Amino acid sequence: MSDTKTKTVKDAVHDHIQVEDVALDLLDTPEMQRLRHIRQLGTAYLVYPSANHTRFEHSLGVYHLAKKAMKSLGVDGRDAEAISAASLLHDVGHTPFSHTVEDVVEEYTGKRHDEVDGILEGNISEVLENHDLDPHRIARLIRGEGRLGQIVSGKLDVDRMDYLVRDAHHTGVPYGTIDSTRLILELELHDGDLVLGEGNVQTAEALLIARSLMHPTVYSHHVARISKAMLKRATRRLVETTDLTGDDVRRMDDHQLVVSLRQSPETADLGRRIVERRLYKRAVWEPYQRLPNSVEDGASVRDFEDEIGSEAGVDPRRIILDVSPPPEIDETSASVLVDGDKKTIDEASRLVGDLRASLVDQWKYGVYCPQEDIEDVASAFESLCV
Amino acid sequence: MSDTKTKTVKDAVHDHIQVEDVALDLLDTPEMQRLRHIRQLGTAYLVYPSANHTRFEHSLGVYHLAKKAMKSLGVDGRDAEAISAASLLHDVGHTPFSHTVEDVVEEYTGKRHDEVDGILEGNISEVLENHDLDPHRIARLIRGEGRLGQIVSGKLDVDRMDYLVRDAHHTGVPYGTIDSTRLILELELHDGDLVLGEGNVQTAEALLIARSLMHPTVYSHHVARISKAMLKRATRRLVETTDLTGDDVRRMDDHQLVVSLRQSPETADLGRRIVERRLYKRAVWEPYQRLPNSVEDGASVRDFEDEIGSEAGVDPRRIILDVSPPPEIDETSASVLVDGDKKTIDEASRLVGDLRASLVDQWKYGVYCPQEDIEDVASAFESLCV
Amino acid sequence: MSDTKTKTVKDAVHDHIQVEDVALDLLDTPEMQRLRHIRQLGTAYLVYPSANHTRFEHSLGVYHLAKKAMKSLGVDGRDAEAISAASLLHDVGHTPFSHTVEDVVEEYTGKRHDEVDGILEGNISEVLENHDLDPHRIARLIRGEGRLGQIVSGKLDVDRMDYLVRDAHHTGVPYGTIDSTRLILELELHDGDLVLGEGNVQTAEALLIARSLMHPTVYSHHVARISKAMLKRATRRLVETTDLTGDDVRRMDDHQLVVSLRQSPETADLGRRIVERRLYKRAVWEPYQRLPNSVEDGASVRDFEDEIGSEAGVDPRRIILDVSPPPEIDETSASVLVDGDKKTIDEASRLVGDLRASLVDQWKYGVYCPQEDIEDVASAFESLCV
Amino acid sequence: MSDTKTKTVKDAVHDHIQVEDVALDLLDTPEMQRLRHIRQLGTAYLVYPSANHTRFEHSLGVYHLAKKAMKSLGVDGRDAEAISAASLLHDVGHTPFSHTVEDVVEEYTGKRHDEVDGILEGNISEVLENHDLDPHRIARLIRGEGRLGQIVSGKLDVDRMDYLVRDAHHTGVPYGTIDSTRLILELELHDGDLVLGEGNVQTAEALLIARSLMHPTVYSHHVARISKAMLKRATRRLVETTDLTGDDVRRMDDHQLVVSLRQSPETADLGRRIVERRLYKRAVWEPYQRLPNSVEDGASVRDFEDEIGSEAGVDPRRIILDVSPPPEIDETSASVLVDGDKKTIDEASRLVGDLRASLVDQWKYGVYCPQEDIEDVASAFESLCV
Repeated sequence: MSDTKTKTVKDAVHDHIQVEDVALDLLDTPEMQRLRHIRQLGTAYLVYPSANHTRFEHSLGVYHLAKKAMKSLGVDGRDAEAISAASLLHDVGHTPFSHTVEDVVEEYTGKRHDEVDGILEGNISEVLENHDLDPHRIARLIRGEGRLGQIVSGKLDVDRMDYLVRDAHHTGVPYGTIDSTRLILELELHDGDLVLGEGNVQTAEALLIARSLMHPTVYSHHVARISKAMLKRATRRLVETTDLTGDDVRRMDDHQLVVSLRQSPETADLGRRIVERRLYKRAVWEPYQRLPNSVEDGASVRDFEDEIGSEAGVDPRRIILDVSPPPEIDETSASVLVDGDKKTIDEASRLVGDLRASLVDQWKYGVYCPQEDIEDVASAFESLCV
Repeated sequence: MSDTKTKTVKDAVHDHIQVEDVALDLLDTPEMQRLRHIRQLGTAYLVYPSANHTRFEHSLGVYHLAKKAMKSLGVDGRDAEAISAASLLHDVGHTPFSHTVEDVVEEYTGKRHDEVDGILEGNISEVLENHDLDPHRIARLIRGEGRLGQIVSGKLDVDRMDYLVRDAHHTGVPYGTIDSTRLILELELHDGDLVLGEGNVQTAEALLIARSLMHPTVYSHHVARISKAMLKRATRRLVETTDLTGDDVRRMDDHQLVVSLRQSPETADLGRRIVERRLYKRAVWEPYQRLPNSVEDGASVRDFEDEIGSEAGVDPRRIILDVSPPPEIDETSASVLVDGDKKTIDEASRLVGDLRASLVDQWKYGVYCPQEDIEDVASAFESLCV
Repeated sequence: MSDTKTKTVKDAVHDHIQVEDVALDLLDTPEMQRLRHIRQLGTAYLVYPSANHTRFEHSLGVYHLAKKAMKSLGVDGRDAEAISAASLLHDVGHTPFSHTVEDVVEEYTGKRHDEVDGILEGNISEVLENHDLDPHRIARLIRGEGRLGQIVSGKLDVDRMDYLVRDAHHTGVPYGTIDSTRLILELELHDGDLVLGEGNVQTAEALLIARSLMHPTVYSHHVARISKAMLKRATRRLVETTDLTGDDVRRMDDHQLVVSLRQSPETADLGRRIVERRLYKRAVWEPYQRLPNSVEDGASVRDFEDEIGSEAGVDPRRIILDVSPPPEIDETSASVLVDGDKKTIDEASRLVGDLRASLVDQWKYGVYCPQEDIEDVASAFESLCV
Repeated sequence: MSDTKTKTVKDAVHDHIQVEDVALDLLDTPEMQRLRHIRQLGTAYLVYPSANHTRFEHSLGVYHLAKKAMKSLGVDGRDAEAISAASLLHDVGHTPFSHTVEDVVEEYTGKRHDEVDGILEGNISEVLENHDLDPHRIARLIRGEGRLGQIVSGKLDVDRMDYLVRDAHHTGVPYGTIDSTRLILELELHDGDLVLGEGNVQTAEALLIARSLMHPTVYSHHVARISKAMLKRATRRLVETTDLTGDDVRRMDDHQLVVSLRQSPETADLGRRIVERRLYKRAVWEPYQRLPNSVEDGASVRDFEDEIGSEAGVDPRRIILDVSPPPEIDETSASVLVDGDKKTIDEASRLVGDLRASLVDQWKYGVYCPQEDIEDVASAFESLCV
């Protein structure tokens, strides 16, 4: 055994993960440890009871795959250390409940999880500097900038290679099982771009397919969407009615947000409903293409909820209009070599356009409210939309 | 498809679990939903980052295996419905962080998790009565009373068949992989006792072995023991220094306990240490057999901590003497048929005695404290024990 | 435990399979036991070394899933026993090396594996009659005739639900992992047709996608195609140059065919090449759309090989022109309920047309020969095709 | 990607195995390819239908683990290449049906599978010499000689780490699931001996336990023992009654042995019985400790079978007395560091002695014969043993 500092962590997906050098020190910061208390899939555990995995284990998995990718690509030395740090840290800026709460926090702070200003100061910055790594460079890598940044955050990044497999393992849904080792072995740097090597159109298609199958089944399952919408509503109200700011919420973990929601009188009902899974139901659930033109931006959504409420005689704070747009499958612009030329998967594969179209076809918008108000809300909506 | 009310839940371990009848209504109670927020393995996720599975999914798994066992044993009708309810409810009395906090709560309330007084009133009692089930009977089954109660809680209960496999799946440690289907198919009712049928001495040994391998690797891993001891200490202090009672703690979920610990000044340091994994270290770690005679019961443990503190010049509240006894492997008294006679595994297998002895051999007691005090505490302990 | 005769078989895919009644007796016939020596995927083990699973274990798996489907569909009594028998027997007419040799045998005998004349006489017929089952009815079920026959052989049959998962397990390729339990639970009989119930367009798409991903990766991998073409060539020559008939070959198992090929002077070289994996290489490998018009039916293929041989100065018996057509994805005409109406998946899903088109796009034809003749054969082919 | 010749093989157990350098050339020899047609577990597929995995995939797995072990131990350069070659080649001397036939072949040739004289000449020797490797050195490594030879063949060799996991995967029996990566990471070279590092007594115990659980369940299952005894009997008769020598048999693969047995009149019945699984049954099945003293060595076994035959009025060629001794668990003498000292597991663990004793306790000897002769043979045996 060599004398570099190494620690082996057992992971349910990748078995033994060897953590070394800067990663070992980063792991010990409170900022990284906080990710142990943020569920990877937000409220999806209300649909898939086993989906309790966290951003922490996912971060370790991404770090593990990044090291494999670098070995395969021949990246080593300082570059490798920077990528190691960036891959481990890539989710450190996440809000509680992952993407669910992120949108709300962004409204109030203008920041998304990859704007990792937190690593430019405090414990993490200190660890990075102790290892002669420039925190600004790491932040850029996390945002996917530069040739190597694509390994961490790009169309073919190791982030999605980990989460597809991990989400499949913990939900029990088989569709996410991609061949991540093959994907990594086939990565090449070509004209400064990360691409899949020759003969991999179908490898790329398989990745796309996995993502597009996981969407309706897991990520956008209607119960996941309802609970997500409720959590957003509750978080927004928390910021509006208490002295907690968007930045305060951003730094919480799941424990803290849940307890805050339950403690504040204005959010207690929604908070309890989420943890007790007494969720709103669908009063309206219609194809997204038939979305009334009038409801498109955030402002009018709220107006429209008010209108429905007054038409239905229901408190509008208990009505949620969910017009979140269909998911983007951004792997479609990833590149693959075909007869020596770099093509986007979009160009190289017939399937891709239709996978995207199929997701849009199946996509719905909804109006949610408590069980007892469903009929009133449904007819109010109908009369307003004529 | 029949017209009974049925819901299929996807589980990472058992794939599809069909939930029916009384179980379906029980699942919707806040009491059952609370189990979604109680980690099955308490603080073991600090050693195994993927070990975030909950009492909720475990309860579903136990319910699923109980139904298989009843099918194999030919139990049906009202008995089957009672066992279904009991198996789903068996952990509803659990404290946050599972067994870790249970011991502390017991000190203050005298209740353990299988004293499920909570099901005798409120939502659960109501659901049971709606299905013509007597809550007192269900409570007795959960405590393992009677012939059928052994399915839910006995030496060969489906509880352990679920958790061994589930803990293995989520930690990534392979040792828990038992052949639960075989165990269930081989169960028989013999003279009013649940036994393994003829030719299953080795099946029983395999179960015992799985349990005794999981102990040192997972359940009693030294980091798990340290974090457990810290959590107990913090919880005890929470009850002693705030107006929260043992019963209040008993009804919390993990979120609430963690936040309470962090909010109360007397427990904030320990609370933050646990969530940030800045754990105490071992100043002393010695074979349990060499435990000084003077430290045996709870009272003298605390006195001894004080003595160490004053000898070492360290605040005794930051010193933990962990003399928790070696685990019991109670499957040893489970029965198996050998040439037509009922024997305990203990009698039927040579291995069993030594498995137990081996666990005791390897067992340690420890003194834990913050990193910076290790040397002082270690020498104080040594000087006191001479 | 009931007193029906039951045997539990441990399976790598489905864990414990309970075999009962007629199935138990059928399993003991030499005809069924022969399937232990026929590899499920023919020569694919030359690409995927772990792909040594057999028609025997697959047959057990199909029997197991058929019983689950019948439980879900409410089929029982005599019908259930007939389907049990048919599902276990469905592959009993298979040639050695599964589909590879089947085409050749069909040329000489006019029979495919589902023309199970063998079950109308001999041991199997006897077992069936002992259980009051009409062998002719079973044969019809195996050919997919009638409402219930669709369970065994139809667009949504349990055959493919077993082989996709089994082939994935044994090759290590993840793409075949479908959610077979969900598929089975969603089956309904609607107007005498087996369909997927409401809300399952995506369930059906997932099945199609699994099949279309397994094709290029496993079933039609170029090394699998080359070895298949060589085995066909060798088998054809065996029938033409020895006194073995097509029917003799049909009744062999893998052992017997391999040894026969190695023993007969005319086939010894090809036989040894296959078992030693000294395979022919691709002299030509071109998009199927560019297949010269002149080579379309079997007869002209052989003529064309002769022409290439004489142009290249190479023994034409060592040249193989492989113009096998692209795979059919026949699930596309399976039915699914959409808003109460029965639709084919083709109609209900945009994806389907493109999945099929994508397989055709990627499909190639090839000319194979020994390594040392590649250049000669390639230029001969080119000059003939101008 | 580096420019060394590399090929990736997909394996059901280890996922992607990268084969490089000398291993790549060795893989292409007919001697290695032959292992594709030798089942790893001999006739165990008659008990576990999925157990059709071969010596070929196992050899790749052992090669893969050997490389991991060398990386962990810091072995590189020429030594690493030698070990790579030895690990891949370690089973190349195997008879058909693995260990079953090996004993018979040894009687006639005096050679076991690790006496790999075959690699000293022919294709393999040529490949080794092309890579500047001395075939004699490789042969010594395969026999476990020297410090490094222990990696390939020793008490803690990678051979058993592969086969335990692989046999579990393919039989579906969970007991073999050891944590091979942990075992490998904990290997150390200490005073020229391969040992497990400090703190690994339980890691070693887990390995031992896995082996001792796999024995009664898989390797020595009574049906496996009966079919094994029948195959030995048939092979012995083949050599005695045809002009095939022990060496001829040694070089066969499974296909060839099965067909030879079925073709030769003296062995046809046994051969057919094995492939059709019409196995002999147990007329006697008694604790090994009660084995009559008179039957101990090979010669008297045959005499005793004759005596039983004449007493029972049954052709003695149809009676098999199986007195094969209990399995050795040789890991018990593997070494592990305890407080800096090298101890055998035997010394370090209480469990070990009892595991061995338990295997002996449960061990049986048996007399097998066709179903119809069971009663006659049983009473003949009884009367002879009084």
